[in-house]
Amino acid sequence: MPTTESTVGEHSPTLALAFELLRRPSVTPDDEGCQELMIERLAALGFEIERLPFGEVKNFWAVRGERGPMLAFAGHTDVVPSGPAERWQSPPFEPMIDADGMLRGRGAADMKGSLAAMLTAVERFVAAHPDHPGRLAFLITSDEEGPAVDGTRAVVEHLRARGEQVDYCIVGEPSSTAYLGDTIKNGRRGSLGGVLRVHGIQGHVAYPHLARNPIHQALPALDALASEHWDSGNDFFPATSFQISNVNAGTGATNVIPGEVEVVFNFRFSTEVTADELKARTEAILSAHGLDYTLAWTLNGEPFLTAEGALVDATLAGVERITGKRPALSTSGGTSDGRFIATLGTQVVELGPLNDTIHKVDERVRAADLDALSEVYEATIEALFVSETSPTAEVSA
Amino acid sequence: MPTTESTVGEHSPTLALAFELLRRPSVTPDDEGCQELMIERLAALGFEIERLPFGEVKNFWAVRGERGPMLAFAGHTDVVPSGPAERWQSPPFEPMIDADGMLRGRGAADMKGSLAAMLTAVERFVAAHPDHPGRLAFLITSDEEGPAVDGTRAVVEHLRARGEQVDYCIVGEPSSTAYLGDTIKNGRRGSLGGVLRVHGIQGHVAYPHLARNPIHQALPALDALASEHWDSGNDFFPATSFQISNVNAGTGATNVIPGEVEVVFNFRFSTEVTADELKARTEAILSAHGLDYTLAWTLNGEPFLTAEGALVDATLAGVERITGKRPALSTSGGTSDGRFIATLGTQVVELGPLNDTIHKVDERVRAADLDALSEVYEATIEALFVSETSPTAEVSA
Repeated sequence: MPTTESTVGEHSPTLALAFELLRRPSVTPDDEGCQELMIERLAALGFEIERLPFGEVKNFWAVRGERGPMLAFAGHTDVVPSGPAERWQSPPFEPMIDADGMLRGRGAADMKGSLAAMLTAVERFVAAHPDHPGRLAFLITSDEEGPAVDGTRAVVEHLRARGEQVDYCIVGEPSSTAYLGDTIKNGRRGSLGGVLRVHGIQGHVAYPHLARNPIHQALPALDALASEHWDSGNDFFPATSFQISNVNAGTGATNVIPGEVEVVFNFRFSTEVTADELKARTEAILSAHGLDYTLAWTLNGEPFLTAEGALVDATLAGVERITGKRPALSTSGGTSDGRFIATLGTQVVELGPLNDTIHKVDERVRAADLDALSEVYEATIEALFVSETSPTAEVSA
Repeated sequence: MPTTESTVGEHSPTLALAFELLRRPSVTPDDEGCQELMIERLAALGFEIERLPFGEVKNFWAVRGERGPMLAFAGHTDVVPSGPAERWQSPPFEPMIDADGMLRGRGAADMKGSLAAMLTAVERFVAAHPDHPGRLAFLITSDEEGPAVDGTRAVVEHLRARGEQVDYCIVGEPSSTAYLGDTIKNGRRGSLGGVLRVHGIQGHVAYPHLARNPIHQALPALDALASEHWDSGNDFFPATSFQISNVNAGTGATNVIPGEVEVVFNFRFSTEVTADELKARTEAILSAHGLDYTLAWTLNGEPFLTAEGALVDATLAGVERITGKRPALSTSGGTSDGRFIATLGTQVVELGPLNDTIHKVDERVRAADLDALSEVYEATIEALFVSETSPTAEVSA
């Protein structure tokens, strides 16, 4: 018989906290009390709390420790909508552990499970090291899944404005693919979007000499963009990718040459090129084809990379100590709030549970993985702050 | 002060009949009594009338004469909608002649003016030649501007089924561009439409290796189609033209590689290629690019051409006799019901008033041009049937 919320008391502190977070339907940008729950626990540990609401988005920043390198845990309390609840095997906001030991509920993997794991990890670490060297912090938002403007981005600007130095950051995004800790993301590609409008002259298909078909004009230029070798990537990033996501032209009438074609495209780019270089090269290709066009750019995020350093070393060591297996480093996949935090000069990694059910119905995560993840986080803090080779130990030695 | 309907009695028979037709709001496929008006006049001349309704479309076929070559006048009583009447300078279904001598009203140019001109031309010709050689006919429909399935096409199939021989046909479409009779259309290009769907594999722009972008795949193939030299045309037709009218792909989301792109295109083709050849060559280009696609074809009309012969000679002579100027022959522009009639082996030309205001607000035609057009039609009948060099004269000689 499946375990349900009524038996929370039997669970580990990590799972018990995960249950409490999961039963709050905090669909973006609602927080539904998740942050106050975390704040209460962190305040009890001696963290200094700074609530940082922007617009309708709740955020908080919490710090413990007076000096030394800072390690921040970052995450979000908001979740994507569940869709129709009846499509779920169990109600999306009534967490339960099924017969296979899977914790079910919207946000179990992305990323309330991680929030619970990082909080209990810090609780154990502080209990063992009440006067720990270095500083521990939490950067928590309720808008990572939405516009992400008034969330981590705004908090980071707030921290930047007052000169806050954040040395290391672990983002609790679900980075694992086949088993817990198999993959640590130590960077993300940049994302650059464009909306291109190629202008022609509308006309009747029977009189093509009186019209200028913008589709025909755009075809060789678009083919050149789709065929372009933008870079070869590097040891950390795959080659930059250009993809057209939308093309629209025409009135629906079959006998009218349209006056315009709209093309929406996106670059996912490595650290071998910059957004400005991609813009310039794109516009050079369009101009070389003699197009009459307008082009609007949206820079969703510059790429970031934590190629090596104390945080990568500590995280690899932490995972290996708990799971017995060494993780792979990866920069693949979509963007995360790590892109904002990295702009502070922070070493950033993402480490969390398996991501195979995120944003889907029946989102779930192995319950035992959350307990292990909490141990991994604790081991990583120890490797960074109190082991013999830790940078903090060196600083305080 | 403008002349209005109340002064119809002052007009020529052609203009008086045009007024009577124009005041009937016969928007496709409605006829609103136009055909009965024509039938009454033709029956009085001794024409044998055959009403041929198909579906909701009214058509009639009328013949006078027992033997010898047949000349049919073809036309339509339906008109395109007027759009908002308040945008017209004068109400679209209240014909009037303005201070500049322009007959105004929906259908004035396309093509009730021609219907009036051809009927009064025949009235005068029959009065002058009650025992004329050859046969005169009318093929009139109320659906040329609509689907055009139950109109001329259906009447032609009816005539074909009983082995009716139609030697010559003058379609009253507005063929003139700068002045009355400057252009006679002696053929039309074919029209072949295609709806192409190129299938890919949908995915996330962050994982392009898991997707197959159908837009990217289609680009070089579409560019090849747009750049293809289909033929060089000939003395009568411009080169075959390929035009993409609509392209649609994408969900609107900027981070999704779509699973499919839809491309709507159209050929306007000369007599140097056939529809089957165009289909085969298109599919060869698509297949050469390795596309996974489906393609639906619609043949709107084969090209037809009356390069030379008795009808072209008679029409040229008729126009020149009345206007003093020799017309140009042209096959440019859109399709007409001539494409159906030509399949009977008929020599077909289109001759009518200026087409600069057709399908627009304030459709109008110079009133004097309709009287001249009626004389041109009459002169053409005479050139064909009773002049010394006419084929009919030869036959009956």
